[in-house]
Amino acid sequence: MFPDGEALAPAATAVFTAVLTEGPISRVALARRLNLSSAAVTKAARPLIAMGYLEEQAATERTGPGAGRPASPLAIRADREFFVGVKITGDELIGVVTDLRAEVRTSAHRRLTATGIDDVLTQLGELVNELLGSFRPRTRHLGLAVSGDVDHATGFVRYSPFLRWHDVALRELAEKATGLTVTVENDVKALTTAEQWFGEGVGADSFALVTVGAGIGCGLIVGGRLVSGAHGVAGEIGHISVDTNGPACHCGSRGCVEAIAGADAIVRAVGRPGVTFSQAVALARSGDAAVGAVFARAGDAIGSGIAAVANLVGPSRIVVSGEGLSAYDLFEPHIRAGFQRQAFGAAADCSLSIRPLPFEEWARGAAAVSIKALVAS
Amino acid sequence: MFPDGEALAPAATAVFTAVLTEGPISRVALARRLNLSSAAVTKAARPLIAMGYLEEQAATERTGPGAGRPASPLAIRADREFFVGVKITGDELIGVVTDLRAEVRTSAHRRLTATGIDDVLTQLGELVNELLGSFRPRTRHLGLAVSGDVDHATGFVRYSPFLRWHDVALRELAEKATGLTVTVENDVKALTTAEQWFGEGVGADSFALVTVGAGIGCGLIVGGRLVSGAHGVAGEIGHISVDTNGPACHCGSRGCVEAIAGADAIVRAVGRPGVTFSQAVALARSGDAAVGAVFARAGDAIGSGIAAVANLVGPSRIVVSGEGLSAYDLFEPHIRAGFQRQAFGAAADCSLSIRPLPFEEWARGAAAVSIKALVAS
Repeated sequence: MFPDGEALAPAATAVFTAVLTEGPISRVALARRLNLSSAAVTKAARPLIAMGYLEEQAATERTGPGAGRPASPLAIRADREFFVGVKITGDELIGVVTDLRAEVRTSAHRRLTATGIDDVLTQLGELVNELLGSFRPRTRHLGLAVSGDVDHATGFVRYSPFLRWHDVALRELAEKATGLTVTVENDVKALTTAEQWFGEGVGADSFALVTVGAGIGCGLIVGGRLVSGAHGVAGEIGHISVDTNGPACHCGSRGCVEAIAGADAIVRAVGRPGVTFSQAVALARSGDAAVGAVFARAGDAIGSGIAAVANLVGPSRIVVSGEGLSAYDLFEPHIRAGFQRQAFGAAADCSLSIRPLPFEEWARGAAAVSIKALVAS
Repeated sequence: MFPDGEALAPAATAVFTAVLTEGPISRVALARRLNLSSAAVTKAARPLIAMGYLEEQAATERTGPGAGRPASPLAIRADREFFVGVKITGDELIGVVTDLRAEVRTSAHRRLTATGIDDVLTQLGELVNELLGSFRPRTRHLGLAVSGDVDHATGFVRYSPFLRWHDVALRELAEKATGLTVTVENDVKALTTAEQWFGEGVGADSFALVTVGAGIGCGLIVGGRLVSGAHGVAGEIGHISVDTNGPACHCGSRGCVEAIAGADAIVRAVGRPGVTFSQAVALARSGDAAVGAVFARAGDAIGSGIAAVANLVGPSRIVVSGEGLSAYDLFEPHIRAGFQRQAFGAAADCSLSIRPLPFEEWARGAAAVSIKALVAS
């Protein structure tokens, strides 16, 4: 919702989205890109310029004699409005403030001592206060990202295993606690939205983001839209079975990617009492062959699961990230090897970006969802 | 292209498609369904009625006093135009003539003694002549379905392994050979289109068709559109690996669904010299436990692959069919068991239709593609 309380016309939403994700861009290029007349672009842009969200940049140079009037590209005024994003995990809140282009301006976090909804809301209110500071006058929106089964449309968290929440009306409660307009999204979908709007997914008709950590998740864009699943399940790459005789999975099956490559599965496969995930990483890096083999098998399973995504859906590119990729060096060659072996024919041409996930990226994803909610409202 | 040589306006295409796939349907229901005004629906329908493709049915009864003017639903005139569909396999041509609703009116087939393009075109010309008969005056379109890598847009067959074709300009050549307007499509995509427009996929936003036979294929509809893959590969469920230590696959990997459940793989796993697929089916049906176990493992691998589709994309339903399902009784319980074990959470709610594929269904798929090309041109 914009400051005057009105929703944008469809053409204005299209113009705003294109300038935000692909700008600065000239009116001529916008008209071509959106299949609109020049007059329609000018009309659509007018209220966005008036409200201060868009601006005309200084005219660029002519490209040659007779090239006509110099173009004045439309650009986003990134500091017109700020957005708070918070990722709620089982043991901490991670928060950021971003501008309209999802650039992080400040971040903060708080340990959670309890995960009851009332405790979390109290901590959330304090964290948001701390974050806002001088951004307060120009901040109206808060995005929240939670792992588990989240109903984005209603802001309900149906089930979040790490938080042990069932049917929590998170949007409504967080709006009361903070006074901001709140958007709630599943954490992997939030990260995928950030990549689609502001990252490697910009302009891609199809795109996948795979997250490696405690669980193995996947956000999928097909035909420019986030895939949600007719039955509420999609992107569950962690529960593709790649080894019918593999280790038992908490889902009841065997050999799921998550049962081989999730952080707990790796700790279990290392099988040395008291050794944590970070210690396993250190052992593998120091040359312990048995522990190294556990990471190799895990990376291979992830690569095989990613190849299933490429073989079935054929995205133009796949980004692999997540906390687990703090052990990037241990996983990366095996992810690529498993992918190359299992990708069928030209599916192997799908570009794989494998990279660590900076600390506040999940929270930035939450902010991106609230930016999208503003623009596409 | 319609008889007057003109393409339809977008609203007319939408009306035609809705009446064809969901009709008979009243103008009021159409307007609501397509988000058009009643006047726009009437205007869009007028040329289609004038050309004889649509007709107004007799008014239905009033539902009660004061219920207003009785509605006269719009319906397709199915025999306004006929369509030829031919599936080209490595050893035969299977042909049908269908009406506008893809109902088969007649069928015929020819054994192929050679698969060179010239031989196939000669046989195709004769088959089409034989099929047309009294349908000739009202038939202008031929759909061709070929397995392999087909470029639907240009009508080029890039590669078809069973036919040993590379870069064949099939559309152009078949138009010369038959005098009809030709559409070419991959066979699995053609079947998927038939299900989407005239079968269990009608009205589904997402939908998958899995074919079991010499290969294991999958057509995928997401967001109402056939998924093609950014790199030209999609729906390759046959090359999802479900058993990292399983049998070697012709793709170079191990344990692919096709390497366990394709017809050749089953014959190989039975491992008795001279025993064909049909004989293996007979042995399993007669109670041979070892051969029965081969089908059980194959069905389980198919179920696990289908679960990967459900976990990743979450289609509203999945149809499993193909020549292999002539052995329906041997596969079906194991496909369901593998699916139930591997489908994650609510993904298991996805409805599975498992059914044999009637002889001329592939050819009907080819005809459906040419109907779609007429309507959506």
